[in-house]
Amino acid sequence: MHAMEQGSVQEHGRSRKLSKIWVINEHVRVGLAETLSTYVMMVFGLGSVAQVVTGRGVFGEYLSVNLGFGLGVAMGVHIGGRVSGAHMNAAVSFSMCLFGRLGWRMLPVYILSQLIGSFLAAGTIYSLYYDAIYHYCGGNLTVSGPKATAGIFATYPATYLSLHAGFLDQVIGTAMLLLCLMALSDQRNQPAPSGGEPIAVGLLVLLIGVSLGSNSGYAINPSRDLGPRIFTAIAGWGPEVFRAGNGWWWVPVLAPMVGGVTGASIYKVFVELHHPSPCEHRREIEDEAEEEAAPLDMQKYLSPEVCV
Amino acid sequence: MHAMEQGSVQEHGRSRKLSKIWVINEHVRVGLAETLSTYVMMVFGLGSVAQVVTGRGVFGEYLSVNLGFGLGVAMGVHIGGRVSGAHMNAAVSFSMCLFGRLGWRMLPVYILSQLIGSFLAAGTIYSLYYDAIYHYCGGNLTVSGPKATAGIFATYPATYLSLHAGFLDQVIGTAMLLLCLMALSDQRNQPAPSGGEPIAVGLLVLLIGVSLGSNSGYAINPSRDLGPRIFTAIAGWGPEVFRAGNGWWWVPVLAPMVGGVTGASIYKVFVELHHPSPCEHRREIEDEAEEEAAPLDMQKYLSPEVCV
Amino acid sequence: MHAMEQGSVQEHGRSRKLSKIWVINEHVRVGLAETLSTYVMMVFGLGSVAQVVTGRGVFGEYLSVNLGFGLGVAMGVHIGGRVSGAHMNAAVSFSMCLFGRLGWRMLPVYILSQLIGSFLAAGTIYSLYYDAIYHYCGGNLTVSGPKATAGIFATYPATYLSLHAGFLDQVIGTAMLLLCLMALSDQRNQPAPSGGEPIAVGLLVLLIGVSLGSNSGYAINPSRDLGPRIFTAIAGWGPEVFRAGNGWWWVPVLAPMVGGVTGASIYKVFVELHHPSPCEHRREIEDEAEEEAAPLDMQKYLSPEVCV
Amino acid sequence: MHAMEQGSVQEHGRSRKLSKIWVINEHVRVGLAETLSTYVMMVFGLGSVAQVVTGRGVFGEYLSVNLGFGLGVAMGVHIGGRVSGAHMNAAVSFSMCLFGRLGWRMLPVYILSQLIGSFLAAGTIYSLYYDAIYHYCGGNLTVSGPKATAGIFATYPATYLSLHAGFLDQVIGTAMLLLCLMALSDQRNQPAPSGGEPIAVGLLVLLIGVSLGSNSGYAINPSRDLGPRIFTAIAGWGPEVFRAGNGWWWVPVLAPMVGGVTGASIYKVFVELHHPSPCEHRREIEDEAEEEAAPLDMQKYLSPEVCV
Repeated sequence: MHAMEQGSVQEHGRSRKLSKIWVINEHVRVGLAETLSTYVMMVFGLGSVAQVVTGRGVFGEYLSVNLGFGLGVAMGVHIGGRVSGAHMNAAVSFSMCLFGRLGWRMLPVYILSQLIGSFLAAGTIYSLYYDAIYHYCGGNLTVSGPKATAGIFATYPATYLSLHAGFLDQVIGTAMLLLCLMALSDQRNQPAPSGGEPIAVGLLVLLIGVSLGSNSGYAINPSRDLGPRIFTAIAGWGPEVFRAGNGWWWVPVLAPMVGGVTGASIYKVFVELHHPSPCEHRREIEDEAEEEAAPLDMQKYLSPEVCV
Repeated sequence: MHAMEQGSVQEHGRSRKLSKIWVINEHVRVGLAETLSTYVMMVFGLGSVAQVVTGRGVFGEYLSVNLGFGLGVAMGVHIGGRVSGAHMNAAVSFSMCLFGRLGWRMLPVYILSQLIGSFLAAGTIYSLYYDAIYHYCGGNLTVSGPKATAGIFATYPATYLSLHAGFLDQVIGTAMLLLCLMALSDQRNQPAPSGGEPIAVGLLVLLIGVSLGSNSGYAINPSRDLGPRIFTAIAGWGPEVFRAGNGWWWVPVLAPMVGGVTGASIYKVFVELHHPSPCEHRREIEDEAEEEAAPLDMQKYLSPEVCV
Repeated sequence: MHAMEQGSVQEHGRSRKLSKIWVINEHVRVGLAETLSTYVMMVFGLGSVAQVVTGRGVFGEYLSVNLGFGLGVAMGVHIGGRVSGAHMNAAVSFSMCLFGRLGWRMLPVYILSQLIGSFLAAGTIYSLYYDAIYHYCGGNLTVSGPKATAGIFATYPATYLSLHAGFLDQVIGTAMLLLCLMALSDQRNQPAPSGGEPIAVGLLVLLIGVSLGSNSGYAINPSRDLGPRIFTAIAGWGPEVFRAGNGWWWVPVLAPMVGGVTGASIYKVFVELHHPSPCEHRREIEDEAEEEAAPLDMQKYLSPEVCV
Repeated sequence: MHAMEQGSVQEHGRSRKLSKIWVINEHVRVGLAETLSTYVMMVFGLGSVAQVVTGRGVFGEYLSVNLGFGLGVAMGVHIGGRVSGAHMNAAVSFSMCLFGRLGWRMLPVYILSQLIGSFLAAGTIYSLYYDAIYHYCGGNLTVSGPKATAGIFATYPATYLSLHAGFLDQVIGTAMLLLCLMALSDQRNQPAPSGGEPIAVGLLVLLIGVSLGSNSGYAINPSRDLGPRIFTAIAGWGPEVFRAGNGWWWVPVLAPMVGGVTGASIYKVFVELHHPSPCEHRREIEDEAEEEAAPLDMQKYLSPEVCV
């Protein structure tokens, strides 16, 4: 008995140590996956913008950019999906923390990984399209004007857009993103089909680009915007990337945080909170049956095996 | 026994009361989901039109609008699919009632929710693209002419279209919609794959936009058209939105009702009524086997476990 | 025993009679489904051409036509898939007969249904776009020239295309169609996922339009081309629809028959004939294992439960 | 017992002989499937380029080419997927060999089959678009200049691209391809859904075209580029196809080999090596549970039945 107790203490000690190693390992594991997810999404996304801008209409159009970011997000989810969840977006990570789906201690790991990933992707696209960019702008790297190339990497608002309208633009865009992400993962509703989550999320981002993108280029993601902006500041475009658009840079960093939480909350208030417990629901619908026909597809919801 | 009877009466009373509460709850639950579904579909749909119109060809083209409404419908189905069925269209709800798949008492809940959802979406897009719209039209909100912007929100007929041709246009468009929706949900035929219903319905709407949209903008949906039209009347375009196109506004309200029922009936008459009961069918096909080869894929239909 | 024999004879007689009724019913059932499938495919397909032609570039582009026919085919498969197989193409039905997957007696039912379906679809699109067509061409229905509108309904060759090159064009296009259809339905290879057959076939047709369409409009289908051509001859374009392109009309009727059989045969010779019986294959691969690594994904093919 | 031993020896001899026959058969079987896969992919891919080039903007645009190669790859995977794995790309086959998923002895079979397939596809497209090509360039087959047509078959670099930048372009493009292919087939992560592999790989190739294609036409595949280049050298464009772009031809042959291995290695280092064994992982996460919330979706990973 004494020996057993000792063993149990030793076991406990070993478990503690292992646990600590595992925490570090887990941080590394999640961090590497999140970095690579974000990197892949951003190489495809920024690549599509670079191609459209430097291609002068011959190598794609606005729809190509929507496809580049949409399918890029889908591939990013394939890269890190089951390891880190492939948020690739600080606003998503922040909302997940706020709603208890991710520990707050993991938040810095996610955000740092995402920033590293998007910074490296900006560097990759800069190297890949170096000749194309210099050929396009004649070697003059500008943030605004007819041959501006900073917009390949970070987002800038349309000239007509006021700063507070731009803030609203980013809040609404990110709210729509999180609202739909909540629905796509709600197993008590009509979620993305099993295995089809990456393409469903990708089509959602494509859709946002098609409908909510013209005001300021639908960053809806601090990690997507800040990393490449820092890269351009260093790589030759200079501090103007932070001054342009009345100091626009902080809007796609802050507004998506507000929007993400807003969107997720709207889904909760309008749909998730009202999901009945299956048994309660079933009993009542049986009482109800002769009085009122159930709306279409409700039958699917009533799984008989749950309440028997 | 006496006590038990009393208990049963009490039980019954409680059940009645619970039932009533549940009816109200259910109305709220379905109504909120239907409102949010319609809202999400319309924000994406109207957003894509606003972007194409105010973007002057730089931020998308006609195909972007088809994608905006198509994928918008898919996301709407994800939002409310298992709660309200996500009709998002009064013509769909009306047809469901007529064919006994939805109680008539629920119809006002659906239609009201849809109108609220599409009205709010129009308001959201107006706020989001306020600067863009004013920049585009110079502050002059018009229903027709070269810088018309009312068409961002509600549909208007092409100048060459007579009113009765427009009525036919909306009847045929909605008939094709319901005809295909019937097939996509017919479990005895080749329905949308399980979990893939949202994207299947979305592709159907994209397809209608690609092929039946140029006459009058494929409203094929009273809820999609009337809510935003009322919004524009209030927000600055004035009563002209109801007078334009020879008083076009009532066509996309009434014609889809006629079209929806027509389309669903055609599917019933051509396909659904002829589905054999599985057992009868199987016995006969066995008699038949040596005389006539079964057409492709019929084997799948004959599930041996059903009739043994 | 006597009574039983009598009963059995009666049973036999009843079965014969039922069988005959069932044959007629089955013809009607299959014919109606095939008619509606073809009708739906053609309304969407022809509608997309009408929209692009009469819309003068504002309501879609060449890609819209590819989407219209591609997704139109997908919807057609949903309409008739489990009833008639939804061939919607006489070249497909003919190939199915030749390879023993459809009784020859059913061939006239299929072809007639397809012609009726495509003829009615041409009529529907003519009614729907009547105002648009007259507005576009000023009421002058021509088969060639700058404002030609016959090409909305049937296909015509490019001016540079010789007749024998056009024949080759239709043979190759239909061969690629059937070759890929064979693969998509080959359960011993990598077929379309269960439930995803309609969209897989639709993407195949979209792909053919994107890559093999510019010579003569990728009819690759006698039923798609002949029905609407007859309609236009009657509806106002006159006998010129049969004379245009050096009497082009018979090419998309005959060449697809040749091409379909060729394509299906190529798949058989290159892939299907070489499928090993699962047990034989498995035993040999086990002998082989240490000598040669199996190519990627072969493991999936070796289902252990089959040969134990 | 003696007889049995003899039998066993005979059995062994027969098995040896059968095995040898089977090796040859297997080479033929895999070779034919790989040839047809590559052929189908290339007919659709090259066809889409031919159509866009000779169609002068009327029959598709750059996006059509992305769709042609993307969906062409998907169809190719359907053709040979379960037989040869449908690599259709020497860089994929080479990487598979290097990572032990394919025996080196099979490599020549794959590469030869792929070259034959792409050569034959170039011949098919040349026949099919013979009239269109001659009509477009007036019979003067050139490799560069305003009416160049060699680019229909093989890739050529943009005029601004230096040779070493082009090498980097092909390395990065192929690295992204293999990196994502590794993720799409990693069953311990978020792979392509079962049955959806062909379309997932197709969308990946479409994505690469949309984002990494404008520098040099995204060959990212020695088999895709060399076969058609040899064909054009023979068919009338002459040795200039090997001299153009400073002797560009060897870049899309060699660089993808480097890129493929690089990309696959990056996925291994960032993600695959860190997959925990399910049991170890589960025990530690249980110790951990109260200290740190698991990131989103990790629950799915912990399959309870594995470690009980």
